[in-house]
Amino acid sequence: MHKKLFIPGPVEVREDVLEKMATPMIGHRSKEASKLQRDISDKMRKVFHTKEEILLSTSSGTGLLEGAIRCSTAKRAAVFSIGAFGKRWHQIAECNNVPADLYEVEWGKAADVNEIDKVLATGKYDSLCITHNETSTGVMNPIEEIAEVVKKYPDIVWCVDTVSSMGGTKIEVDKLGIDICLTSSQKALGLPPGMAICSFSKKAVERAKNVKFRGYYLDLLSIYNYIQKKDYQYPSTPSLSHMFAMDYQLDRILEEGLENRYNRHLEMAKYVREWAKKYFELFADERYLSNTLTNIKNTRDIDVAELNKKLGERGFQISNGYGKLKGKAFRIAHMADCTLDDIKELLENINEILGL
Amino acid sequence: MHKKLFIPGPVEVREDVLEKMATPMIGHRSKEASKLQRDISDKMRKVFHTKEEILLSTSSGTGLLEGAIRCSTAKRAAVFSIGAFGKRWHQIAECNNVPADLYEVEWGKAADVNEIDKVLATGKYDSLCITHNETSTGVMNPIEEIAEVVKKYPDIVWCVDTVSSMGGTKIEVDKLGIDICLTSSQKALGLPPGMAICSFSKKAVERAKNVKFRGYYLDLLSIYNYIQKKDYQYPSTPSLSHMFAMDYQLDRILEEGLENRYNRHLEMAKYVREWAKKYFELFADERYLSNTLTNIKNTRDIDVAELNKKLGERGFQISNGYGKLKGKAFRIAHMADCTLDDIKELLENINEILGL
Repeated sequence: MHKKLFIPGPVEVREDVLEKMATPMIGHRSKEASKLQRDISDKMRKVFHTKEEILLSTSSGTGLLEGAIRCSTAKRAAVFSIGAFGKRWHQIAECNNVPADLYEVEWGKAADVNEIDKVLATGKYDSLCITHNETSTGVMNPIEEIAEVVKKYPDIVWCVDTVSSMGGTKIEVDKLGIDICLTSSQKALGLPPGMAICSFSKKAVERAKNVKFRGYYLDLLSIYNYIQKKDYQYPSTPSLSHMFAMDYQLDRILEEGLENRYNRHLEMAKYVREWAKKYFELFADERYLSNTLTNIKNTRDIDVAELNKKLGERGFQISNGYGKLKGKAFRIAHMADCTLDDIKELLENINEILGL
Repeated sequence: MHKKLFIPGPVEVREDVLEKMATPMIGHRSKEASKLQRDISDKMRKVFHTKEEILLSTSSGTGLLEGAIRCSTAKRAAVFSIGAFGKRWHQIAECNNVPADLYEVEWGKAADVNEIDKVLATGKYDSLCITHNETSTGVMNPIEEIAEVVKKYPDIVWCVDTVSSMGGTKIEVDKLGIDICLTSSQKALGLPPGMAICSFSKKAVERAKNVKFRGYYLDLLSIYNYIQKKDYQYPSTPSLSHMFAMDYQLDRILEEGLENRYNRHLEMAKYVREWAKKYFELFADERYLSNTLTNIKNTRDIDVAELNKKLGERGFQISNGYGKLKGKAFRIAHMADCTLDDIKELLENINEILGL
């Protein structure tokens, strides 16, 4: 039996979107391929609220985390982590001999805006890497407040991981001044995993030119140069199947209307939060709750794996706590094409199983 | 109108295989995902004729070229290029600060086995990177002869790019002693682009442990360690759609029988070669012709772009010459699930268009 996914990716993908994954192949050096890839970029710019270039990468979001930090750091990167995925950025820097410092907060808290200000004021850094929405903790960073601080430092190339939020909540890339904003197909965009997307500002282009060892496959500057020169064709063969589905799904997203989409996500988030507060507790700081995922403290000491097993028998799947939170918390994702009715159905089933 | 693809990837993908790309999502941390990924590795081992570990990468083949040369070079890499894709390996090394030397031959020739021997005998190198089948020229390197030489140098980690040959011609990875043999989904395996595959020998594992900066997303050792520890689950979210299709297609490949598959490819290659020699000339050294692609010298000075346009109107697509050979040659791929009848139909159409 298929299980409806309420995990923070891969998300449930609509049947009509899945069908587009089965589109017959075309040559990736054809005019059709150029048009497909240009159309995706045009539509994606609307979702990102940007006029800058959009780059696609046949990889997971992690691939673009690597491309971003390598391309944007000529001097030293300041990585602000609020959980597992923030920390990954620092690990990536270490594996690539990119100088970087890691600044962490306690899990469940948002980034400290004053600390970011102080750290950048040292003048030691030329790039800032931060997670917008941290699925390991359920925290969504106050991106507007952070943007106000970053604007004071014009030499900083700012990279933001919006893997689990882009398309589910408003992120105005140009207005915020984000240089590299990256996301992944299998989260709030409602597509299968396998493709990552980022915006790439002119400032990021100039910085990348000053970085000597940017790698090859994940080098954002080489992708950028190639699509400019070759009418939106990519240096290596991209996952055309994902592109067919992405092009179609972007039409659906824009048809729904971005504001409607954000409101639907917020409405689902509020419903899950109320339920969580009634029966359990929220894990994250209530001022910075994620709109796409709720992390719930296991205050009733339920057997999370057992709950998920029983949910599975009914055709649903949620997530256990991440890493050190396994068993101590559980997570419900409410993103992509999931509806409030889907959420209500899930929570009713959880209530029945737990006898709440 | 859909064009039947006779280009060296993406290849034509069978409808039943495409349909598997539309399989509904599952959690990538589930037991189902482990089973899917383990099954693929088991079946892929048969195609690779290896008992070593199989790694999947959600990327193009270029991604694994990068992972391979970074992981296998602690000292210095010897790159033997016979065309555009061999050279790419050297570019990748340069972009990653991996010490490497490039040894080239004239386009159309195979690698010089004696030169490989001489170069390795210098003791300067600890890795050897070479392309098996070069789609830019139509040459297939004499891999058995090269293997005899490489065996003399036990410190060499040997990486072979079989992107456009694996599954279409016999490559006995273990018998040849290849440490990292890599390929891509959209060539002779008959799948859509978006996933790369490699074998990873124990010698390669040990070497990688001695390389400090292997990168993150394309780090073969970290993928290897992760799938050992987590029952074939991958460090980042893989393209599950490709895995569903790959698992299915591998059953079809093994059902056809590997020897039958190789023979079918050879039969198609011979037919195209005969046609090419009758009306044009072969570009590559006749002793080392590729079994999956034929590069044809444009001795009649035809307008290749115009021919392809007219073929397009009839529902076929071939490839122009690669890079500097554009207009001077054209290429016909005969790989994956293409049949001799498909090839005959294509060539009849070319004959009609050109009035041959």
